[in-house]
Amino acid sequence: MFEKVLKDPVHDEILFDDPLLWALVNTPAVQRLRRIRQLGTSYMTYHGAEHTRFAHSLGAYETMRRVLVHLERECGWPSDPRTRRLALAAALLHDLGHGPFSHTFESILGVHHERWTHRIMLEDDALRQVLDTVDSDFAKDLVSILQKDGRFLAIEALVSSQLDVDRMDYMLRDALSTGVSYGRFELARLIRSLTVQDERVYVKRQSLHTVEQYLLARYFMYVQVYLHPVTVGSDVLVENILRRAKHLLADGVAIEIPEALLPVLTGSEVSVASYLRLDESVLLYAFHQWSTSSDQILSDLADRFLTRRLFAPIVRDGASVSEWAALRTMAKAMGFSPDYYVTERVSTIPGYEVLGQGLTLLNDFGECSDLSQVSKLIRTLVPSQEHRLFLPKEMLESDNEPLSNRVHSIVFSRL
Amino acid sequence: MFEKVLKDPVHDEILFDDPLLWALVNTPAVQRLRRIRQLGTSYMTYHGAEHTRFAHSLGAYETMRRVLVHLERECGWPSDPRTRRLALAAALLHDLGHGPFSHTFESILGVHHERWTHRIMLEDDALRQVLDTVDSDFAKDLVSILQKDGRFLAIEALVSSQLDVDRMDYMLRDALSTGVSYGRFELARLIRSLTVQDERVYVKRQSLHTVEQYLLARYFMYVQVYLHPVTVGSDVLVENILRRAKHLLADGVAIEIPEALLPVLTGSEVSVASYLRLDESVLLYAFHQWSTSSDQILSDLADRFLTRRLFAPIVRDGASVSEWAALRTMAKAMGFSPDYYVTERVSTIPGYEVLGQGLTLLNDFGECSDLSQVSKLIRTLVPSQEHRLFLPKEMLESDNEPLSNRVHSIVFSRL
Amino acid sequence: MFEKVLKDPVHDEILFDDPLLWALVNTPAVQRLRRIRQLGTSYMTYHGAEHTRFAHSLGAYETMRRVLVHLERECGWPSDPRTRRLALAAALLHDLGHGPFSHTFESILGVHHERWTHRIMLEDDALRQVLDTVDSDFAKDLVSILQKDGRFLAIEALVSSQLDVDRMDYMLRDALSTGVSYGRFELARLIRSLTVQDERVYVKRQSLHTVEQYLLARYFMYVQVYLHPVTVGSDVLVENILRRAKHLLADGVAIEIPEALLPVLTGSEVSVASYLRLDESVLLYAFHQWSTSSDQILSDLADRFLTRRLFAPIVRDGASVSEWAALRTMAKAMGFSPDYYVTERVSTIPGYEVLGQGLTLLNDFGECSDLSQVSKLIRTLVPSQEHRLFLPKEMLESDNEPLSNRVHSIVFSRL
Amino acid sequence: MFEKVLKDPVHDEILFDDPLLWALVNTPAVQRLRRIRQLGTSYMTYHGAEHTRFAHSLGAYETMRRVLVHLERECGWPSDPRTRRLALAAALLHDLGHGPFSHTFESILGVHHERWTHRIMLEDDALRQVLDTVDSDFAKDLVSILQKDGRFLAIEALVSSQLDVDRMDYMLRDALSTGVSYGRFELARLIRSLTVQDERVYVKRQSLHTVEQYLLARYFMYVQVYLHPVTVGSDVLVENILRRAKHLLADGVAIEIPEALLPVLTGSEVSVASYLRLDESVLLYAFHQWSTSSDQILSDLADRFLTRRLFAPIVRDGASVSEWAALRTMAKAMGFSPDYYVTERVSTIPGYEVLGQGLTLLNDFGECSDLSQVSKLIRTLVPSQEHRLFLPKEMLESDNEPLSNRVHSIVFSRL
Repeated sequence: MFEKVLKDPVHDEILFDDPLLWALVNTPAVQRLRRIRQLGTSYMTYHGAEHTRFAHSLGAYETMRRVLVHLERECGWPSDPRTRRLALAAALLHDLGHGPFSHTFESILGVHHERWTHRIMLEDDALRQVLDTVDSDFAKDLVSILQKDGRFLAIEALVSSQLDVDRMDYMLRDALSTGVSYGRFELARLIRSLTVQDERVYVKRQSLHTVEQYLLARYFMYVQVYLHPVTVGSDVLVENILRRAKHLLADGVAIEIPEALLPVLTGSEVSVASYLRLDESVLLYAFHQWSTSSDQILSDLADRFLTRRLFAPIVRDGASVSEWAALRTMAKAMGFSPDYYVTERVSTIPGYEVLGQGLTLLNDFGECSDLSQVSKLIRTLVPSQEHRLFLPKEMLESDNEPLSNRVHSIVFSRL
Repeated sequence: MFEKVLKDPVHDEILFDDPLLWALVNTPAVQRLRRIRQLGTSYMTYHGAEHTRFAHSLGAYETMRRVLVHLERECGWPSDPRTRRLALAAALLHDLGHGPFSHTFESILGVHHERWTHRIMLEDDALRQVLDTVDSDFAKDLVSILQKDGRFLAIEALVSSQLDVDRMDYMLRDALSTGVSYGRFELARLIRSLTVQDERVYVKRQSLHTVEQYLLARYFMYVQVYLHPVTVGSDVLVENILRRAKHLLADGVAIEIPEALLPVLTGSEVSVASYLRLDESVLLYAFHQWSTSSDQILSDLADRFLTRRLFAPIVRDGASVSEWAALRTMAKAMGFSPDYYVTERVSTIPGYEVLGQGLTLLNDFGECSDLSQVSKLIRTLVPSQEHRLFLPKEMLESDNEPLSNRVHSIVFSRL
Repeated sequence: MFEKVLKDPVHDEILFDDPLLWALVNTPAVQRLRRIRQLGTSYMTYHGAEHTRFAHSLGAYETMRRVLVHLERECGWPSDPRTRRLALAAALLHDLGHGPFSHTFESILGVHHERWTHRIMLEDDALRQVLDTVDSDFAKDLVSILQKDGRFLAIEALVSSQLDVDRMDYMLRDALSTGVSYGRFELARLIRSLTVQDERVYVKRQSLHTVEQYLLARYFMYVQVYLHPVTVGSDVLVENILRRAKHLLADGVAIEIPEALLPVLTGSEVSVASYLRLDESVLLYAFHQWSTSSDQILSDLADRFLTRRLFAPIVRDGASVSEWAALRTMAKAMGFSPDYYVTERVSTIPGYEVLGQGLTLLNDFGECSDLSQVSKLIRTLVPSQEHRLFLPKEMLESDNEPLSNRVHSIVFSRL
Repeated sequence: MFEKVLKDPVHDEILFDDPLLWALVNTPAVQRLRRIRQLGTSYMTYHGAEHTRFAHSLGAYETMRRVLVHLERECGWPSDPRTRRLALAAALLHDLGHGPFSHTFESILGVHHERWTHRIMLEDDALRQVLDTVDSDFAKDLVSILQKDGRFLAIEALVSSQLDVDRMDYMLRDALSTGVSYGRFELARLIRSLTVQDERVYVKRQSLHTVEQYLLARYFMYVQVYLHPVTVGSDVLVENILRRAKHLLADGVAIEIPEALLPVLTGSEVSVASYLRLDESVLLYAFHQWSTSSDQILSDLADRFLTRRLFAPIVRDGASVSEWAALRTMAKAMGFSPDYYVTERVSTIPGYEVLGQGLTLLNDFGECSDLSQVSKLIRTLVPSQEHRLFLPKEMLESDNEPLSNRVHSIVFSRL
């Protein structure tokens, strides 16, 4: 009997009963995820948010394993071991391509992490060697699943939809690590609400409130954690640091720079091997180096990040174009380059999406309906946006009264 | 009213009601602790153990705050605000001097982290500036407390003894992060068990079992978490990497090396400013660089750490001197330099210590007794040692049968 | 220093620091609440729901104590010790008048439990003796608070409103005991969201999402726990048993009956002393006696309750008047008296109420708005009703196909 | 697929996948356990301890189910469905024979609850009808298991030994309900530590510390919860009430008495049907009746219980025979009959037992050893006794100074 058990703060125990999956865990590409935080810069807001994409990947795997135990009892799906392995491997590997401070990094790199996940799966030798022990199509099928080609509909839905093992794990894990209760929901019951018919995943009608709770938990996590103004301000700072370094490089200014970061910032071709050397230790080290750079903007921004002197947000609601110009002028007057010290950011709180990807409820008589048809609560979950401007805190502490009036008080409780 | 509240996974909320303490949190020296893990390499064993010394420092502060709320009601101690501030600041700052992968680093540096804590308190400008706002002796008094000079007996005991806010916080935090239940105890009741008389801290006799539970929790954390063979093996690996780099530098071999690390490895004088630039991102970055070094030992060891191909332990119990020599010979035959690939390590599980530092129980009639006089369970907690040898896993997988017989099976469940 | 500490599964510790409150806990009227479950017949659905009104009363007291600790720091309210005592005593005593299987019992008795709470406060000697130690108006002022006379506005709101210590405690306690996660919310943060100005309670605008989470938790508790069809069916059974006994007594049929229950069922005047002898042990004992009664309806109904052969619900949605008549006929044909075996019940899921009792948000600039103006989610929380018919399970198991089609599948998972 | 799921505060979900087990849950004999608390009078000390033997029986069943899931994977045991059913049914039904306030009741009745469990299994029609659907020996085999006849060694050990599903569930459940953390241990890991070879249950050597933690948790539960002096004092009160009623009946004094209780108190033959009508509602109702009895001792004792004016303990350590006589004299002088108001009670804290029933560790090489050989901590767990005298609190509040000196202060924090 093969059995590896890992202790986990969310699921208590994570069980590996298939040597293939365990071999995947031990590849360098997966181990690298230990050096990338799940929540990017959220640890600047919630000091507990240090958990990694590695822990989350194990948790997504374990959630999938439990989903499959349920579905096998419930409806005999999946019926073959290869499908089971595809589902488990897809859950474990779905985040392979994330870079340091993921979403910020993507915007600099100009490539979605999903693309990198696919490339690593297909091109990384060590990983490929393990995947190919199943068969030579296994890696390609995994990519197909993550691309949602429609060839493995049920697995695709379980790995990436509005009710997938990815979100089930990260919401619970993020809630535990930050210490907030908002992200909690009834995991075991939610898992039991699922059923598969003709390769499609359905939610049982009787579990309506369980799904409502889960989707509302997601809403609360967005407004309280994922889009917390201090976190968004930290993202802005990381992005501005990288933009400044990129700009300096483009201008031919010599700055110290970790080798693995160079092609990213110069816009050269990035190889898979080079990408896999990128992690948050590399980025933080670059910030260390840059904090003593002779370029004052770069050194000031990097030092702000390392010592957590973050940008403060003001709500953009009423700010007119002229006010926006006035803020840039004010920044300049205080010695701050507006391009790097006054940044606008629009954050989107996702809603429940019906078109093409809604959750389908199935009642005892085999009748289907979209979740939003049945639940008034869910219909309120439409996407909304937060417009905010981020500035050095010093600008708010000056005697610019009308400005400080629009500052969230919550922000100051964290800064 | 000044109030800053931080959400915390262990204490739910951490409350700052004194601007001084909040200003201390925001110094670069304290913020640096965000980049140093509380449990060193334990995250290689327990993937949840990513929590930082920063989070723990906040938690030790909050525990002290609650202890003081209790003691003020219980016995009117402390009676003056300066003593309160000393106690809170000492709790918050007690870990300032930790370096990356702390205990391992100390052995290379040859200096205890406590020494660095004292130096940073006295010499770091930004920190000193805040401390001096109280009075010019405040920093010195803090150092005096941490040195246990005996001038502030009660605070000294609350900050560092067998029942202090440091341990109360880290046991709960380590238990939560790793996911084990071993470290849990009744915090609120333990806090209420404390009383201060004539500047000495006592434990109420009626709380005997609460203290027993706490001390046994500590024992279990040592055997299950702190001295887990995979963790000790990871420490050995870090230490051997640093030893190799140091050796190469001493031999005049040119290796890439982060600037902040250079004086440490060459044995030069290390300034406070330079020390404060050291954190785990710097060390991990060095490992990245070294993993492509032309020195094969250095590059192999660094790569092992980054890809988690750790050393495996064998129990040393019966191993005679001749067997020890045989293992070194075997290593050499397999191409492993014995100096870096066969390492002995003795780990000490601390016991309950009576001499000079026992816990004193106080009964309702004012009579004192040492905890160990009253509790049979506590008397079993005497220090013990684990002798282990660490080797590349490959050596165990060869057909050296008598060797693999002595390997803990638990180890393999993690490797 | 006066200090009594009780261990509590919800709040960890409940602290009494005022001998008056402790003396109140030890009155027979409060101790009687140990014999009345908080959730009535919910334990038939959730086997963990055995927690008592006594435990909840202690929890409401502790929640109030924490609210007052916060408000004293926040805004210096309450400023005098008598107001503090009023608030704490009102929280502790607010449920005094509950009878066994409370809401069901009320409908038989024809008197609201609140009326009994007031009478007990004013008329019970042992309780009055303690209350009068404060002053001779203390008991009357407590009644005034519970009646919401408007003389103690802030306390009234904290004891009974849409955001009061009563609900804060019971939602957490009910969630813990049943094992569902739906009722959880951020208690500490919710408490800190409160402020008092000019004797009115406000919620800080920045805590919007905390209040949303709390109100949604309440919604989920209603749909998942409080109005669970199995629980409502158990209530119907208790009510029908009592109705049958009352009917027999009115008809002059001699049945065994506990003395304390006699005036209730005969409609005679009930004294406070007699009311205080009523608890769930008395009712259950009556059911025991009645289960061997010679009246077949009474004995069958009582035996059903004791052996948990409950009524099953069918959703009433589409049922026309003719169908309703058909069901009564069908019951009769199977030997079930329709008056006691076919019962309609309308349950109301409360919504957020604005008129006269909404929650007022207060922003940093002193501007007020009703919660429903700001939150789209809260606006969906309008009252709704569930119409259900309850029948013996045997009726559903017959081959009456169209009937069983309308049965909630969730019901069968519990029955 | 048969599936019934119950929500549980300890195990989250309890799963029934075999209709036989579900049918057993729905027998009157099992449903009766809803009216008997798991911890007897502990709710007088810990107000949360209202959980029932019914909830615990479900929990013991669920723990057994998980143990079997593990053992089936681990070592293919049990190999046949009948053995599985025996194990699950034994776990579910092991507490059937408990009476109200169990251990106290046994001492009055003079019969162990185990005896009643066996009788109910064999003689109760409704239960027997379900059991006989398996085969006609099933009920007898269950009794054989509970009697530990040695015919089903492994099941016997899993149902009743020092490491059985009974204790695993009740320690966690008692800890949760009371709110103490002492009873917690690593359930999932403990379950995985078990293995079966040749019908014997072993504990894997590598799980040594997991078992240590579990056994120490048990020790702490005894000293902090099960033998809490307030609880023991409540037991004494219940016993003295019943003794008084029995005495009065023997003397021919007419007292009101619930019918089901009569044979028990008169020492007549008690039938199974009559026994099954006994539960805590019956006993509490009797106390209600007796609290207005004309016998002053009976009415006072019953009223004390209902209003929680409990007996207070004094430690017996040094009390000589003469002092004991003095206390009886003092009681008499204060109007208390010494036979009912001065009671000595010896409570035994069980230790780890080796003889014939120790836990056997099995290492990777197939070698066995008793747990106590390996663990110093476990060797300290030897049985010990607490001698206490219980008296009306009034006796301690008189000015008998040397007496009150020996009173546990902990007691007063609860009384």
